[in-house]
Amino acid sequence: MNKPSAPDLLSSDFLTQDFLTWTRTKQSHIESVLGLTLPPASLAPQTLHSAMRYSALDGGKRIRALLCYAASELCNTETQVADAAASAVELIHAYSLVHDDMPCMDDDDLRRGKPSCHKQFDDATALLVGDALQTLAFEVLSAPLLCKNANQQINMINILAKAAGSNGMAGGQAIDLSAVGVALTQHELETMHQLKTGALIQAAVLLGVHGSNEHIAAVSIYAKNIGLAFQVIDDILDVEADTHTLGKTAGKDANSNKPTYVTILGLANAKKHARQLYETAIDALAPFGDNAQRLRELASFITQRSF
Amino acid sequence: MNKPSAPDLLSSDFLTQDFLTWTRTKQSHIESVLGLTLPPASLAPQTLHSAMRYSALDGGKRIRALLCYAASELCNTETQVADAAASAVELIHAYSLVHDDMPCMDDDDLRRGKPSCHKQFDDATALLVGDALQTLAFEVLSAPLLCKNANQQINMINILAKAAGSNGMAGGQAIDLSAVGVALTQHELETMHQLKTGALIQAAVLLGVHGSNEHIAAVSIYAKNIGLAFQVIDDILDVEADTHTLGKTAGKDANSNKPTYVTILGLANAKKHARQLYETAIDALAPFGDNAQRLRELASFITQRSF
Repeated sequence: MNKPSAPDLLSSDFLTQDFLTWTRTKQSHIESVLGLTLPPASLAPQTLHSAMRYSALDGGKRIRALLCYAASELCNTETQVADAAASAVELIHAYSLVHDDMPCMDDDDLRRGKPSCHKQFDDATALLVGDALQTLAFEVLSAPLLCKNANQQINMINILAKAAGSNGMAGGQAIDLSAVGVALTQHELETMHQLKTGALIQAAVLLGVHGSNEHIAAVSIYAKNIGLAFQVIDDILDVEADTHTLGKTAGKDANSNKPTYVTILGLANAKKHARQLYETAIDALAPFGDNAQRLRELASFITQRSF
Repeated sequence: MNKPSAPDLLSSDFLTQDFLTWTRTKQSHIESVLGLTLPPASLAPQTLHSAMRYSALDGGKRIRALLCYAASELCNTETQVADAAASAVELIHAYSLVHDDMPCMDDDDLRRGKPSCHKQFDDATALLVGDALQTLAFEVLSAPLLCKNANQQINMINILAKAAGSNGMAGGQAIDLSAVGVALTQHELETMHQLKTGALIQAAVLLGVHGSNEHIAAVSIYAKNIGLAFQVIDDILDVEADTHTLGKTAGKDANSNKPTYVTILGLANAKKHARQLYETAIDALAPFGDNAQRLRELASFITQRSF
């Protein structure tokens, strides 16, 4: 077992070549799995299918898929189950980005350096794209005979539905919408992020162990803390963007009067908080020994990223 | 077995007291099941949960739930399974109405005589309500140990996902959006309606027999034909609304330059077509004898309605 020491946040010299190779391999793999899962652009209705592929492919760091694959190493999850789980989580994430970018929500014209779905197509198409990507996630997870244990498969579907719905991701988004200009406590901010981004990150990890009861308690602690750390780092990067390549507008959250970990805790305490969350996540993995190595590396990757 | 004769369309003297009592009982029952399924309005995020209840409760004729319950009589589906199936289908239907009414889609301010969700709340809330209602449908169907046969439960989830997605309801909506002002053939119009409304109506029936393979072929024929008949009657009512209480703007489809069965076939042939679809649906039920009585009555109800 190789427990990394508490990282210096925002450094970039912590990644081993082995981890980078694994990451690139899995990123490329999920891209091709999603490419086969999404309906071809040539199939009617062509505009909808093209827009679904535009929004879900060639996308981002695939952190959720990576967490899913890393967790699958804890219990040798079959490849087809891990692929379905990783695809389903990425499809839910992609749908949430398409809807979040729409004019009535965050009104973002750019996503990953290209026009967001409603700018490239139109609002009605973006609405249907998000709807259909969500449905596709549940279609993927309900493929007949995906898992040897059908009850475990049902459990995976239930975990994803709970994470995405009004008591999970969609609920967090609703709280976020009503929080602009409102003074939140750290606890309220954490509840909001726990729902908005944490719930799906947690689901990614739980689906990676295909909802197996024997692993759920420990990996839940890991996943919850990593999900929150992810958001704290986001807030730190929003402030420190002058000195780091962020790839999006620096200071956007602060300028839009949204409460952040930095506005509530201050920069130094926000960094300390991220480090504590990281440590708690790593400690929860102790029972798994070397099988949890990728999850540990991903925890470092998430808390030390500068993007 | 009691096969009704071909109905005179748009008459209203065909409903037995027994059928009306059954209908009202089931409508009241699904309302209370949905009331318990939807998160309470007092639970955070309150606005989202209130808006979900506003949009999914006190709603319409519940044709899809009725089809589901009627189909469940073919094979004595357990009550809890029929309730989950009927709820899931109604939640998907409710989500589609909320999103369809939004300004970027059909831009309807009224739904069932009250302000549509985005008018009563706002666009962002309506977007999240639709998203969360869809997720809730899959959460309901993935309840642990819902069915004795877990593979059958997975099959139900898969049927619903396929019916709702880009090759089903959402796909039909996309085709509909692109069809305004376009001259469609009867075949193209049927494909569009088969996806937009037919797929979910078909799913309602298939979920009622909890995805049981032995019933799927026959009830699929029934459901497909009833789904199409439903739409043909809609188009006839849109034209004949002067003499019938429609409860919505008469001539709306014709005025908005949307292709309809009446514009393509003419009024007399549209009625003849509805009658043929009804007959085909009824014939498919022959193997089920008296167990299919409610499905037969619903077929009459759907093709003879004047609302």
